[in-house]
Amino acid sequence: MSTVTPKVEGKKRKLLHHDNINPHVRRVKYAVRGALAIRAEDLKTAIAKHGRNGFTFKKVVNCNIGNPQQLEQKPITFFRQVASLIDYPDLLLPENQSKVEALYPPDAIERARRLLKQIGAIGAYSHSQGIESIRKDVAEFIEERDGYPADPNLIFLTQGASQGIQNVLQLIISHSNVGVMIPIPQYPLYTATLALYNGKPVPYYLNEEQDWGLDIAELTSSLAQARSKGVEVRALVILNPGNPTGQCLSEQNMKEIIEFCSQEKLILLADEVYQANVYYPSQRPFHSFKKILKSMGPKYNDFELFSFHSISKGLIGECGRRGGYFECTGIDPKVVDELYKIASVNLCPNVHGQVMVDLMVKPPKSGDPSYELYEKECKNIYESLKRRSAKLCDVFNSMEGVTCNPAQGAMYLFPQIKLPQKAIEAAKSSGQKPDEFYCLAMLDATGVCVVPGSGFGQKDNTWHFRSTFLPPEELFDEFCGLLTKFHKEFMDKYRD
Amino acid sequence: MSTVTPKVEGKKRKLLHHDNINPHVRRVKYAVRGALAIRAEDLKTAIAKHGRNGFTFKKVVNCNIGNPQQLEQKPITFFRQVASLIDYPDLLLPENQSKVEALYPPDAIERARRLLKQIGAIGAYSHSQGIESIRKDVAEFIEERDGYPADPNLIFLTQGASQGIQNVLQLIISHSNVGVMIPIPQYPLYTATLALYNGKPVPYYLNEEQDWGLDIAELTSSLAQARSKGVEVRALVILNPGNPTGQCLSEQNMKEIIEFCSQEKLILLADEVYQANVYYPSQRPFHSFKKILKSMGPKYNDFELFSFHSISKGLIGECGRRGGYFECTGIDPKVVDELYKIASVNLCPNVHGQVMVDLMVKPPKSGDPSYELYEKECKNIYESLKRRSAKLCDVFNSMEGVTCNPAQGAMYLFPQIKLPQKAIEAAKSSGQKPDEFYCLAMLDATGVCVVPGSGFGQKDNTWHFRSTFLPPEELFDEFCGLLTKFHKEFMDKYRD
Repeated sequence: MSTVTPKVEGKKRKLLHHDNINPHVRRVKYAVRGALAIRAEDLKTAIAKHGRNGFTFKKVVNCNIGNPQQLEQKPITFFRQVASLIDYPDLLLPENQSKVEALYPPDAIERARRLLKQIGAIGAYSHSQGIESIRKDVAEFIEERDGYPADPNLIFLTQGASQGIQNVLQLIISHSNVGVMIPIPQYPLYTATLALYNGKPVPYYLNEEQDWGLDIAELTSSLAQARSKGVEVRALVILNPGNPTGQCLSEQNMKEIIEFCSQEKLILLADEVYQANVYYPSQRPFHSFKKILKSMGPKYNDFELFSFHSISKGLIGECGRRGGYFECTGIDPKVVDELYKIASVNLCPNVHGQVMVDLMVKPPKSGDPSYELYEKECKNIYESLKRRSAKLCDVFNSMEGVTCNPAQGAMYLFPQIKLPQKAIEAAKSSGQKPDEFYCLAMLDATGVCVVPGSGFGQKDNTWHFRSTFLPPEELFDEFCGLLTKFHKEFMDKYRD
Repeated sequence: MSTVTPKVEGKKRKLLHHDNINPHVRRVKYAVRGALAIRAEDLKTAIAKHGRNGFTFKKVVNCNIGNPQQLEQKPITFFRQVASLIDYPDLLLPENQSKVEALYPPDAIERARRLLKQIGAIGAYSHSQGIESIRKDVAEFIEERDGYPADPNLIFLTQGASQGIQNVLQLIISHSNVGVMIPIPQYPLYTATLALYNGKPVPYYLNEEQDWGLDIAELTSSLAQARSKGVEVRALVILNPGNPTGQCLSEQNMKEIIEFCSQEKLILLADEVYQANVYYPSQRPFHSFKKILKSMGPKYNDFELFSFHSISKGLIGECGRRGGYFECTGIDPKVVDELYKIASVNLCPNVHGQVMVDLMVKPPKSGDPSYELYEKECKNIYESLKRRSAKLCDVFNSMEGVTCNPAQGAMYLFPQIKLPQKAIEAAKSSGQKPDEFYCLAMLDATGVCVVPGSGFGQKDNTWHFRSTFLPPEELFDEFCGLLTKFHKEFMDKYRD
């Protein structure tokens, strides 16, 4: 037995402390839920405990994360009816039939029955890659969307798109000098995952002046620069529609990107989680990279593509269930096997998320009892998102020193603010980045939580923030009013 | 544009191939869902397509994985009632009251209402660490179980215990020479995760002759050996109750383990997912490491412990929902912050799994309308598990050359088979390990899928397999009969 060394409680250094944990973990940055989100949580708790005392706003509004149902977007009724029946299979016993029919439409009952039969038991671990019948439904959805075949064996169901993206990046980063091209601004999952698995981000800049467009010349120069430093660049990440930037790629641009990857021997990762959030489809419709690739003919048969999708976005916004999938196109079968092995270590994606994937890819069809309601709900959400997106963009553009591209897709706006020198100095003296300083001031004045542009990356000496346009429509004018008032007061205080 | 080089389809080497992926991914082994599980899936598909043609058994029985509901264990009714109501909140509207009351008991309705109020929207991402009110319920559960306080801020809800274990190991493995002590035999998640994050497994052997007991002398010598090779051993993993071995640790033994960790400056990871699966509680009750630690007084205030629990095991077996939690005891607050950051990158554990954690830690109480049914369901499952465990153990012990320790806990038996030399040679000539050869022969003859001991680790030249005792009780005699018949025929064929 060792002698007890007298010591001041809590002063002894722990075995595991901040300086001796995995340095890759330490290096991860994640702004979407960073300092601002934590301050927002504190404010929420304070308001819940003490009421509005001392606050100029009624409540905290989380515009820092694309989380529609947090801001009162209603879930799709049919999806939840099916989910509810599946959770409690006794409802499907003959003795409950009439009672259940009084609460659930016949197609929800029929669908729940069919899913339960295919799944067996939703309380059981499923196939590690995801339930086979659901992967078949995903493959059919892809085939109908693109007009080209899809193979259920090359589809992996995942716990949200994030898990799939992490698994694929983990596979690709074979040593610490592997680079992956990512857009700037980017969704910070990518830099976080690259930090965690010790890969190198190879940034390419989106063109803010051209609606956040993607220029092949920029890809070429970014790649050349990384290669000249000896980085082994293996993959290119594209977010289409973009996050935080909302742009939708044209077919021509996508062909150029595929051609670029093909010539430069890059694997393409297509993050297409916002494919149903496209607001000007006649000018900029969504095309999947799989479809464009297949349209380019047999020359590209060997092209290597991973495509990601999710139940968290679109018009359904089922973030809490954590469901998604990715499809492997042209990937070496032995690599697919390795992805399956990693999926096996994780046992399986949660079955409730898998069920929601099935409902997303196979919603009620014309003629089904629930079709009309489903269509109406989707249309209402879609049109409201589109209206709110346009309105908030106008509000931003009407502010002094703020410019904002419209969102062609996704759930965010990424306005640029020309901050006065005085504000930049005030930020410096309080140890904050200027955009962070602005966003913290906004949070404290309005309760609105957005994310500073530095969390996504931005050109040097430009300042942005990302805001969702998800606050409920009936409160949207009030929300826009709060932002306008705050910005004016901020500028009045700091104008040079 | 490059010219199209004529080539044989599929012959060109891919950019990403088996030899240039992340070598840590390549090195991962995962037997629970390995070759045997894949062959079992193929057999299932074949039987589903072509019927029993050519097979001597009716169906494949998955004893390779602790997946109770796959083998017809019924879920706890109350839990699923609450889950069903939460999925479809319209059921709680006043206009549906009488219809809903005809299908759901009042306490399920009340509980769903309370949870929905606390959660807000189950379709939304939650707090990354898990919903606060659920973490409070977990803390209360721990306090009641142990008699010592627990802090909701030090509890992380996770997607099954596996995710928590992976996150903690990832944090601890700060470089490639970090070692983590793991039992042999072990649950292969540990070796898989150590391979993935490039840490070093430091094996210590459980004592098969003493009911898979844990000897401090063995810990000491294993640690000394690793340290003498320059390995920086940082942590000790204990599975209590054991998997695949089923042993439950005595209080005295646990105190020795804590003392050992304290002296040797090791962080303790306590995998306690089978805490409700303890079959001889009067001789070997379950004690949590947290409780034993706290009982040892202030000398151990600085002790660093992570404790893991899950909804997948116990008597509820809700594997498909992927829910669990871990508790940090004595962990540096800055390290807890880092765990929170990683949780944020993953957004949040699925909310349905979180809800099930809440139900597990706060089930119906005496006096509640659903209490009687809940108690009856738990008792039936518990007693049936205990009976099946004892029966299967007897069956194994009655087989020629087979010895099996009883399962004090968990869901598995891990019998040792003395394989005849002829069988060992037959295995060699077919390129299989002897235990794998035996298990594949069992699968082909009986449809029963178990996991070879080599997947868990075993002393050299001993052969084991792990089988769950989860096949439904009404089919259990038939199941045992199949195994007995197979073993006899195997021995008749290969007896030396």
